Amino acid sequence: MWPRTRCPGCWKMLTVAMCMALLGCLQARELQGHVSVILLGATGDLARKYLWQGLFQLYLDEAGKAYNFSFHGAALTDTRQGQEFIAKVLESLSCPVDVAPGRCAELKGQFQRLSGYRRLRTREDYMALSTDIEARVQHEGLREAGRIFYFSVPPFAYADIARNINSSCRPGPGAWLRVVLEKPFGHDHLSAQQLATELGSFFREEEMYRVDHYLGKQVVAQILPFRDQNRKALDGLWNRHHVERVEIIMKETVDAEGRTGFYEQYGVIRDVLQNHLTEVLTLVAMELPHNASSSESVLQHKLRAFRALRGLQKGSAVLGQYQAYSEQVRREQQKPDTFHSRTPTFAGVLVLIDNLRWEGVPFILMSGKALDERVGYVRVLFRNRAYCTQNRERWVAGQSPCLPRQIVFHVGHGQLGVPAVLVSRNLFRPSLPPGSWKELEGRPGLHLFGRPLSDYYAYSPVREQDAYSVLISHIFHGRKDSFITTENLLASWGFWTPLLDSLAHEAPRLYPGGAENGHLLDFEFRGAQLCFSQQQPERLVPEPGSAPTPSAFQVLRATYRDSPLISAWPEELIAKLADDIEAAAVRAVRRAGTFHLALSGGSSPVPLFQQLATGHYGFPWAHTHLWQVDERCVPLWDPESNFQALQAHLLQHIRVPYYNVHPMPVHLHQRLCAEEDRGPQMYASEISALVANSSFDLVLLGMGMDGHTASLFPHSPAGLDGEPLVVLTESPSAPQQRMSLSLPLINRARKVAILVMGRVKREITLLVSRVGHEPKKWPISGVLPGSGQLVWYMDYEAFLG
Amino acid sequence: MWPRTRCPGCWKMLTVAMCMALLGCLQARELQGHVSVILLGATGDLARKYLWQGLFQLYLDEAGKAYNFSFHGAALTDTRQGQEFIAKVLESLSCPVDVAPGRCAELKGQFQRLSGYRRLRTREDYMALSTDIEARVQHEGLREAGRIFYFSVPPFAYADIARNINSSCRPGPGAWLRVVLEKPFGHDHLSAQQLATELGSFFREEEMYRVDHYLGKQVVAQILPFRDQNRKALDGLWNRHHVERVEIIMKETVDAEGRTGFYEQYGVIRDVLQNHLTEVLTLVAMELPHNASSSESVLQHKLRAFRALRGLQKGSAVLGQYQAYSEQVRREQQKPDTFHSRTPTFAGVLVLIDNLRWEGVPFILMSGKALDERVGYVRVLFRNRAYCTQNRERWVAGQSPCLPRQIVFHVGHGQLGVPAVLVSRNLFRPSLPPGSWKELEGRPGLHLFGRPLSDYYAYSPVREQDAYSVLISHIFHGRKDSFITTENLLASWGFWTPLLDSLAHEAPRLYPGGAENGHLLDFEFRGAQLCFSQQQPERLVPEPGSAPTPSAFQVLRATYRDSPLISAWPEELIAKLADDIEAAAVRAVRRAGTFHLALSGGSSPVPLFQQLATGHYGFPWAHTHLWQVDERCVPLWDPESNFQALQAHLLQHIRVPYYNVHPMPVHLHQRLCAEEDRGPQMYASEISALVANSSFDLVLLGMGMDGHTASLFPHSPAGLDGEPLVVLTESPSAPQQRMSLSLPLINRARKVAILVMGRVKREITLLVSRVGHEPKKWPISGVLPGSGQLVWYMDYEAFLG
Repeated sequence: MWPRTRCPGCWKMLTVAMCMALLGCLQARELQGHVSVILLGATGDLARKYLWQGLFQLYLDEAGKAYNFSFHGAALTDTRQGQEFIAKVLESLSCPVDVAPGRCAELKGQFQRLSGYRRLRTREDYMALSTDIEARVQHEGLREAGRIFYFSVPPFAYADIARNINSSCRPGPGAWLRVVLEKPFGHDHLSAQQLATELGSFFREEEMYRVDHYLGKQVVAQILPFRDQNRKALDGLWNRHHVERVEIIMKETVDAEGRTGFYEQYGVIRDVLQNHLTEVLTLVAMELPHNASSSESVLQHKLRAFRALRGLQKGSAVLGQYQAYSEQVRREQQKPDTFHSRTPTFAGVLVLIDNLRWEGVPFILMSGKALDERVGYVRVLFRNRAYCTQNRERWVAGQSPCLPRQIVFHVGHGQLGVPAVLVSRNLFRPSLPPGSWKELEGRPGLHLFGRPLSDYYAYSPVREQDAYSVLISHIFHGRKDSFITTENLLASWGFWTPLLDSLAHEAPRLYPGGAENGHLLDFEFRGAQLCFSQQQPERLVPEPGSAPTPSAFQVLRATYRDSPLISAWPEELIAKLADDIEAAAVRAVRRAGTFHLALSGGSSPVPLFQQLATGHYGFPWAHTHLWQVDERCVPLWDPESNFQALQAHLLQHIRVPYYNVHPMPVHLHQRLCAEEDRGPQMYASEISALVANSSFDLVLLGMGMDGHTASLFPHSPAGLDGEPLVVLTESPSAPQQRMSLSLPLINRARKVAILVMGRVKREITLLVSRVGHEPKKWPISGVLPGSGQLVWYMDYEAFLG
Repeated sequence: MWPRTRCPGCWKMLTVAMCMALLGCLQARELQGHVSVILLGATGDLARKYLWQGLFQLYLDEAGKAYNFSFHGAALTDTRQGQEFIAKVLESLSCPVDVAPGRCAELKGQFQRLSGYRRLRTREDYMALSTDIEARVQHEGLREAGRIFYFSVPPFAYADIARNINSSCRPGPGAWLRVVLEKPFGHDHLSAQQLATELGSFFREEEMYRVDHYLGKQVVAQILPFRDQNRKALDGLWNRHHVERVEIIMKETVDAEGRTGFYEQYGVIRDVLQNHLTEVLTLVAMELPHNASSSESVLQHKLRAFRALRGLQKGSAVLGQYQAYSEQVRREQQKPDTFHSRTPTFAGVLVLIDNLRWEGVPFILMSGKALDERVGYVRVLFRNRAYCTQNRERWVAGQSPCLPRQIVFHVGHGQLGVPAVLVSRNLFRPSLPPGSWKELEGRPGLHLFGRPLSDYYAYSPVREQDAYSVLISHIFHGRKDSFITTENLLASWGFWTPLLDSLAHEAPRLYPGGAENGHLLDFEFRGAQLCFSQQQPERLVPEPGSAPTPSAFQVLRATYRDSPLISAWPEELIAKLADDIEAAAVRAVRRAGTFHLALSGGSSPVPLFQQLATGHYGFPWAHTHLWQVDERCVPLWDPESNFQALQAHLLQHIRVPYYNVHPMPVHLHQRLCAEEDRGPQMYASEISALVANSSFDLVLLGMGMDGHTASLFPHSPAGLDGEPLVVLTESPSAPQQRMSLSLPLINRARKVAILVMGRVKREITLLVSRVGHEPKKWPISGVLPGSGQLVWYMDYEAFLG
């Protein structure tokens, strides 16, 4: 243990220079207090491999500055065994390379004297620990600065320990408590929430430090400082106009052998993507706070980045599993021969960010075991916005704007072998902290990301530091932005859980492992969908007696209620309807200069909107007027509003001029569908003014299970006949009040398309096929365009059941 | 001349196989008539080099099928000289390589007997020609099928010849007339229109065939058939989601020496881009007609493609001139030593297409003389939408989806040396007409567009054909889609003329020529702007006594009318204002959840809109409400409407929800600003309902040269004081009627920013600085926010003059 006179051995035995470098002990400051570090699970694997070394490093960095330390290894192991274990670990600690062996032995001796083992099981044990710490502090004549409890224990042990710390081992007033938690932090959003609530009953948010050791990797920890220090160069580049894609990758060569008990419960998404890669994603994508060194700002901006992430769907991921995995699980978990695991050991995920900075830029997250190499990196590839006039053979690297431009945060391993930050020389010369980062030496022949190393400005840390040492230092300094707050954790689980749920029963693609994977795991994206680039050969061979696939059917043409009927599988049906609408639009624009399209609400048209938005490049939107067939009496921005669906799935993807969009005036004078505001009359007069003969070019309708169409319900007192073109109606279901085009107006259209989809419609479809013209009872039966055409579009489920 | 019994020599002298191949004479058909080809300018360069050979090829392809031919070389040269010239040319004609020399001599003999020379100068000469043709047709016992007049003469001669043909040499009823015209077709839109009108007084549109010989290049002629025959593979790829860029390139190594008389009047844009490259652009970009072999559909779709092109601006192009050019002009055109030409010999142009298929895809057009190689190509580069899981060293060409994917229409020359169509093997295997296109043989070591030739499916024509031979055949077959219709020509000039006008006084960048150009001519784009990638060194050295550059000034802070004044050069001023607005928005959203921004009309805010639209990724648009400060009483879609500018420069680039946009209701019940529609009251009540205390977070105003602001003009009877929040006013200039926020409403804002720009505002700025609070006389002087802040933003020209 250090005597109270500061650093006496230091004065005796070190040269002044060494002393400055290692302990900073020349700057004699007032000691501000005592810090106790309690390592729970001190005899475990993680503690042995990283944590004791990290604590030793903390000691080397901080001792002789402002605080005294004591280090308490704790576990359930009995005291003698524990002490023996700790003694062994402490003996194996290593000093930084620049410390002479003799000096190292001395420093280790000092650290050993400050460190001990104690069994912590019962509340009394914790009380005793607390008393001992207080005694020690008093003996030193210092005040207590704080206590760090490092939970290196399995999650099931958390609650007991937390309760004991909270009740019996908190430091006194004026001293801080920091508890350090290791993942897993739950298994999905719900379990993470439960765990967080439980911990929250013992600790305040600012007391908890959840470790994601990836945030301690030197290169990862450098992402924000890099963005901050190179603000000027990056300001114009760090956005969708310039970034082509971002790849966030962690490849492993090892497999899960020996760890299948854990792995089988988690899989690659929970093990790597939900935490490590997501954290990196937010560091790259977040708006850079004005003050990037403010933990609070960073955490807030991170949360905002989470909110901008577009929700993941089943199609957002591809999954794989190395072939030997199931056998390993069977062996290690004593499963029967028939057992086949569905746990993914490989995943590629496409993340999109819905904000102006990143809209449309693919963020590719990928991790897997049993791959061809071990490497982790974040690669920001910039678009090529140049044309190089000379023949490619004359391009000069570092000068040609046409050669790839990228920034790579090379976390570690790979062909380079060291952590590094790489910036293409034709991009800009980056600034990195000169004391701690140095330029990498040339390595002739080494190519990285398609270019020779010499094409990059390449920097690596002067001194490689273990992630845990970095994080333990950050805990000590209270730098919360290197840790996962509860909000951050729940945001991340909130993002991943829907995907995990939707993939729960997916069979991953099997891969042989290593270089033999070939192109089997390459994947591609289209829109927000991911798929493997290579089709799996076995899928091409249909099993005997298997069900017919959609493509085995043709689009079926027939009649229904004496009008043409088009029937197909949903996808083909929507495609056909979209084609027909486009054709009608092109004809109308050619004929009259404009196309007047009236669209129904409800959920059926949503895939149609999507199809029109993404697949129809020739659609004359600039000359199209969009009208509503019906609307609920809610504000346009209400999620229940039909207009809202139109806005989300169609309007925001196309370019219809603002004044060609005609929402129903359900919201006038700050009230909804008030008779005296004469909304229907207004809409009718707008139609009369703009649509020749009030004859829409195309009206799209649906059919409800009660035979309603538009918002014209059975026995409606208005809209089924009579003069008014637009009416207020009542729905049997909430929100009850509606506005709707009337049947007489609908029947003036040049073309009416009725879209009916899904098995739930089977019954009404059958029924309506048999009724005559009874609009009072079955409003849909009143759809009979005077001189226009009526076409039914039904999917097989609605038509054939 | 051919005897009337068809092809007797053929029967005697050819093997059956040869006969089939060359003349198709085995299929004996009824002769349908006689075709006369009159080559005007028959003794000129173009005729000697290409046209006679093309006519011979036509003869070889068609003789013995349905028509008899006669070929009439014509010029102003006297008859004997002309005959001698023609005789020499005819002797030099060559046969296809697969024709034996003896047979070739015979075929040439036949062609020579059908060909003659005649002087055509006067109307009588044309009458005589017509009489001779009629006599010949009668002698053959055939009807006349048609006459082709090929104008290989300078444009100034067109009118006379056209008049003579029209008056004295038209074929009789039932026979067609085709006149073939060679560029230049005018010098700009006006001259092209005049020429077209003049020609239109002699010929009907369907009689005119304007040649762009580029359309006869085999690869160019293959673009549409390729798109048609590979529809299935291309359908999903040929759009902005998949195409990264399109490069349309024609590089030359030669310079303009010896042709500077012509070149100095035209320059590279008129010489190459306006015609050849634009034609190719439309072939790539147009919607593919359902029936791609219908000339009419193709021409219509081409015109539609023109309509979708975004207008070019000065910033759309970079220009260069090879260093020796001015000296060559001085020498050849006897110019004084002080003469320096501004004619560009190099141009790079960025073309954007405003439709859903191509929006945002850069089409790069580039051509130049004295470059490092001679090559012409169209390169369609696809986006990389894949992630390849293996290390790059393991990627297999042709399989890896991550290697570049491109389709190249290689028009000719370059390292490949032959015309070819290249499709990356990792894209799809293309289909090309098997009879006329063959797979290219391997050429080890040859790299094209960054990949070895073996990475492509590569096809070249079985038989290389000269462009003129192709076109002459198309003229004969009436395939008008290979020619430039009047509409097409005017559309192209309409597209290029504004750029040419705006560049007329630009000094092109000088380049040394050849490989020495280095990276000097590389260029980059940002948005719709192009610039050279390398700064020109001489520009970095300021001349002594030169004017201060914008960056030499700091943003100036002072006061004006006792309020803060921010003054700067226009660009910095706009940037500062945009920053301030964003900061206000972020604060307001943090405070109240929404940001209410009221924007003035006029031209000053346009660059501000653009800045906000493109440079501010963190702007909380989803929570911003946009209001208008004033509006003209015109429909929202009127180009005069303030809303239209807002829509074009801001709304369409950002994502403000539809219902957060609040246009002034100037257009209600299909009339404009009618008192009884109570538009101002409606707007006022909308403001009261949504904006807390009717206090906008920020109001942006301008200042007119008469001291007006918003649409509040001097001595306005409304809006300067009193109750109403929104008023109708009268402007002294059309359109007179306006709607405007009132001064009392403006003065309730939390912040008012007044933007004043340009030298024209200097006088009023000075004046207003001296007046007190006189809103009746100077409405701007009434802007005095009650509890809010007023800030003036003036550029140096407005503030300092």
